[in-house]
Amino acid sequence: MAQNITQKIISAHLVEGQLVPGEEIAIRIDHTLLQDATGTMAMLEFEALGLDRVGVDLATQYVDHNLLQTDFKNADDHKYLRTACAHYGVHYSEPGNGISHIVHMERFGRPGLTMLGADSHTPGAAGVSMLAIGAGGMDVSLAMAGYPYYFPCPIVLGVKLTNRLSDWVSAKDVILEMLRRYDVKGCVGKVIEYFGPGVETLSATDRMTIGNMGTELGATSTVFPADGRTRQWLESQGRGKDWSELTADQGCSYDEYDEIDLSSVEPLIACPTSPGNIKRIEEVAGTKVDQVIVGSSVNGSYRDLMVTAKILEGKHSAGGLSLHVNPGSRQVLENVAESGGIMPLLLAGTRIHQSGCLGCIGMGQAPGTDEVSLRTFPRNFPGRSGTKSDKVYLCSPETAAASALKGVIADPRELAEQMDYPRISDPNNYLVDTSSIVFPSPESMQTEILMGPNIMPFPELDALPETLDAKIVLIVEDNISTDTIMPAGSKVLPLRSNIKAISEYVYYQIDPDFHKRCREYRNAIIIGGENYGQGSSREHAALAPRYLGVRAKIVKSFARIHKANLCNFGILPLTFKNPGDFERASQGARVELPDLRKIIERGGVEIPVLIDQQEIITRLEVSDRQRQHLLAGGVLNFVRNQIKEA
Amino acid sequence: MAQNITQKIISAHLVEGQLVPGEEIAIRIDHTLLQDATGTMAMLEFEALGLDRVGVDLATQYVDHNLLQTDFKNADDHKYLRTACAHYGVHYSEPGNGISHIVHMERFGRPGLTMLGADSHTPGAAGVSMLAIGAGGMDVSLAMAGYPYYFPCPIVLGVKLTNRLSDWVSAKDVILEMLRRYDVKGCVGKVIEYFGPGVETLSATDRMTIGNMGTELGATSTVFPADGRTRQWLESQGRGKDWSELTADQGCSYDEYDEIDLSSVEPLIACPTSPGNIKRIEEVAGTKVDQVIVGSSVNGSYRDLMVTAKILEGKHSAGGLSLHVNPGSRQVLENVAESGGIMPLLLAGTRIHQSGCLGCIGMGQAPGTDEVSLRTFPRNFPGRSGTKSDKVYLCSPETAAASALKGVIADPRELAEQMDYPRISDPNNYLVDTSSIVFPSPESMQTEILMGPNIMPFPELDALPETLDAKIVLIVEDNISTDTIMPAGSKVLPLRSNIKAISEYVYYQIDPDFHKRCREYRNAIIIGGENYGQGSSREHAALAPRYLGVRAKIVKSFARIHKANLCNFGILPLTFKNPGDFERASQGARVELPDLRKIIERGGVEIPVLIDQQEIITRLEVSDRQRQHLLAGGVLNFVRNQIKEA
Repeated sequence: MAQNITQKIISAHLVEGQLVPGEEIAIRIDHTLLQDATGTMAMLEFEALGLDRVGVDLATQYVDHNLLQTDFKNADDHKYLRTACAHYGVHYSEPGNGISHIVHMERFGRPGLTMLGADSHTPGAAGVSMLAIGAGGMDVSLAMAGYPYYFPCPIVLGVKLTNRLSDWVSAKDVILEMLRRYDVKGCVGKVIEYFGPGVETLSATDRMTIGNMGTELGATSTVFPADGRTRQWLESQGRGKDWSELTADQGCSYDEYDEIDLSSVEPLIACPTSPGNIKRIEEVAGTKVDQVIVGSSVNGSYRDLMVTAKILEGKHSAGGLSLHVNPGSRQVLENVAESGGIMPLLLAGTRIHQSGCLGCIGMGQAPGTDEVSLRTFPRNFPGRSGTKSDKVYLCSPETAAASALKGVIADPRELAEQMDYPRISDPNNYLVDTSSIVFPSPESMQTEILMGPNIMPFPELDALPETLDAKIVLIVEDNISTDTIMPAGSKVLPLRSNIKAISEYVYYQIDPDFHKRCREYRNAIIIGGENYGQGSSREHAALAPRYLGVRAKIVKSFARIHKANLCNFGILPLTFKNPGDFERASQGARVELPDLRKIIERGGVEIPVLIDQQEIITRLEVSDRQRQHLLAGGVLNFVRNQIKEA
Repeated sequence: MAQNITQKIISAHLVEGQLVPGEEIAIRIDHTLLQDATGTMAMLEFEALGLDRVGVDLATQYVDHNLLQTDFKNADDHKYLRTACAHYGVHYSEPGNGISHIVHMERFGRPGLTMLGADSHTPGAAGVSMLAIGAGGMDVSLAMAGYPYYFPCPIVLGVKLTNRLSDWVSAKDVILEMLRRYDVKGCVGKVIEYFGPGVETLSATDRMTIGNMGTELGATSTVFPADGRTRQWLESQGRGKDWSELTADQGCSYDEYDEIDLSSVEPLIACPTSPGNIKRIEEVAGTKVDQVIVGSSVNGSYRDLMVTAKILEGKHSAGGLSLHVNPGSRQVLENVAESGGIMPLLLAGTRIHQSGCLGCIGMGQAPGTDEVSLRTFPRNFPGRSGTKSDKVYLCSPETAAASALKGVIADPRELAEQMDYPRISDPNNYLVDTSSIVFPSPESMQTEILMGPNIMPFPELDALPETLDAKIVLIVEDNISTDTIMPAGSKVLPLRSNIKAISEYVYYQIDPDFHKRCREYRNAIIIGGENYGQGSSREHAALAPRYLGVRAKIVKSFARIHKANLCNFGILPLTFKNPGDFERASQGARVELPDLRKIIERGGVEIPVLIDQQEIITRLEVSDRQRQHLLAGGVLNFVRNQIKEA
């Protein structure tokens, strides 16, 4: 049967299940990707498995999220990751070497492979035609151990691209066009597969931009064919031999279908406070801008920086506006330097930073009160910049540069009156720099793992009790996000490798005493509304409550990734059979779940719950695999038991 | 009478007093310098004077200390400073444009002028033969208003320089040699004046390095002749017309004398945890290094970065070592870029940062636990890096680069086996960039001053009461530093423009309830030992306690600048006549100072104090001017009353 690219990659890696959209499948993982914000815990989880060495073809660890180093914790994390990588056989990319997705594509990405990354923007590897999926750190640590990845077989959305982009319009506008059409949930459960004659007009890094931000559509991943442009990129990186052709079969089909005429795409902008709040530039043109930042995993490539430099060349940013460039990788900056791009940026008044995520995850670069910040970043959720009253807009480098010159949001096409569009090609031969990647070796296994005082081993979690006796510690409403459960930012992020310390921040914005009450209750239960746990994939939003004694969450409905994370750490994800029972819960009420283990062992879906002696019915809708994990007190206990028995 | 340069500059600016070392004199100030950490409060103080515009020839405001922007406060401070500068006629240098001392020397410094700066390293302007002095923000805001600066007439220490520095030895080693001889208090009350044939072998930025770090000797300032090298520098900056010759008269004398044979200076290093803990490199060579940083106001010049780039060229920093370069100014980085210095730095694995102070004041770049950090910075006080257990060494760029290559502290002269010493000359014509300096104009006075929610006006302080009735809020021992009284760092520094908020951190490391008890007591008194208030000049260590209700400090002895700051904000600086009375104080005891105003008005030096009804005698040793300030409740009240009466 004729297959599309997604089907081809999945088939070639299928370990369990069938290619039926929605059914759970398991695939073999070729590459794993960690960054420091999720990676310290994932590495601690890997350590807790008790293995000698990673069991995946290529495991990588990048340090890009937290480079501020406001105290010892940050540098200690770096040292821990460096020594643990050497010890277990993981490739380690040093702080300042660049953003995971960009460096991985430069140095390691290859067509047709699978990758699991503990970062939601992992699908940027679409630029070199990988099937790359973002997941929780626990899932990635299991993949590092050689275990397959379980997920629902995706729906494939084929998007045909025709013609080519106009001058002053670039790949970012294509993904903003997709967001205009589908908004932030329109592609949940889907892999977006681009095809058609327009594909070859997009370079590898253009495709990276489109794949990276497919995450904002809710997509599982994005894939592109591996064609001449892919080969050109790999050759320019000195890796021509890593290329292989990968195209959809003639006559293949897609589960869903769409089409974009690239020549009709206009400069677009995502307005505050959602990547899906898309407008045409002219609808917001003239809005005063206080800050402009070019960079991030979605727009930190050579092309992105060079087009910015060329637009700014011989000019200066508007008065009172703060202009920043965050190079995607040191190699990107080196090639920009080689091409004469640094001086025009500096002379335009740019603050050029070290390579990394920086302001994109709220580590610095926060705008002032009520200020407008125009960024080439992938996300503009409220407060993510570090400033509660921020007004963050997302756009292409072209729009960012044009607006930086004018001091107001500006359509880059207006620059056509003054200059030709600077169409940037990748260098034929990139200056290649692998000097800040530490390659593991058999000898490096001897490396002693150095753990600073803020780095605590993965906590021991006990198995599910026969009968659960607990108290309701908190009742929350609909649409609680993982940012509310477990905040990020420059204060809390440095605690990610210390579950005891970070657990004191669980729910602290809405209830500073949450952690104290959990301790008092010993076993605690949270009651919630619809769409509980939406947003970021951070597993700390499951692990830290579990550490505090939260054993079950009973809600009206769960967001997908958070529910999976709850199973991973042994918290029961229960839903009300009758949503009206939500009203029967009160804070401090005693809750009993009698004969819990027995019910779960026999596959029971309905779980009776006594709230202050009154019975309600809840539902446990998880796979058999997840039932085993819940019984064991978490997937780590389960797998560790398996390893012991083997 | 034949005069030395110091005497010439002081004579030309003398407003009150006589040139007798130790006697209080007042001099006219030509330039004022503010940076953002001290400048927001200084600007609020200037605002509180109620004037329309600055009354000094040239007022400058740089943003260099806090560029991290972890939330809205930082960017709000920048906007406040920008708009206040425009309004009052101050030159504003934008964040990212560079470190105050370096930019001021590039764009504004001129031989023979006086400058008062709210930064202890202001004497770096010695590089262009200014008499530049660091002071509290209140003093600088008064200078901005056109008032003279009062200080004890300095002792002049003449240091004769002979011969020239050897290869691999540079200006930093000269000032480290001075620190080896005098330690950190050996030049208190002195201006160091360099002369002799060795002077012309040092470039303007070499002299800046030596002048900047004279502060670590305790010196009031440092001066150099304005000669051909000075002219060469000003011409290379396109400011040849700002040059004028300034030399000591034939036959002049110095109050003290020393001599350095430059050819005998060796590479030196300041070991943890004092700039005065000097060793020869060979005594510590081989010590494993985790982090190397080149930059800061003392070593952030073109020469410093280029010599680093040339040493690193074609090589890579040692594995596991984190290498940073912090350019002193954007113009420095532009000229390094023009000279091809950026690529060798990047290829060596350097993290190149935006221009600013950064890790030098603990805003980022903190080393890990117990890590060794080798820095070209001026200070290595314990914990200043942001990491309590740091091990910070101070050295020249040559030593830093050589050590970065080896991964251990290394004598740069060992490199002579591999390469010639890269002797760097300033460009004949610097690429000059003034684009990030906002020049004030008559029109800019219309600018509305924008104050974010964290920026609070200077608090109203009441006059001294007839009789003071207070309680003892805290008793501390000897050698309490202003860092203990009012901590800095990434948590507290962003609160510098909000006295109410920052006052909650007064003494919080040793007594978290200090501020609460002050509130309870209404009028509070602190009892201390010897050398109370040593260290940094930060005026928040006086203003914030005053805001909390501290009206007097009774100690065994005071550090000089802190005592002046206490007078500035209306806190009585009293010393025990009989130091043994220290033992009679107990926390919470009632303290009365009857007829206080009357005694001070009539010039009384002995002030009777009743501690729980028992009388002890304290001494108030201040000038008549300071008595007026204390009676008014602070210098600001005093000056404001003067302005009203005029």
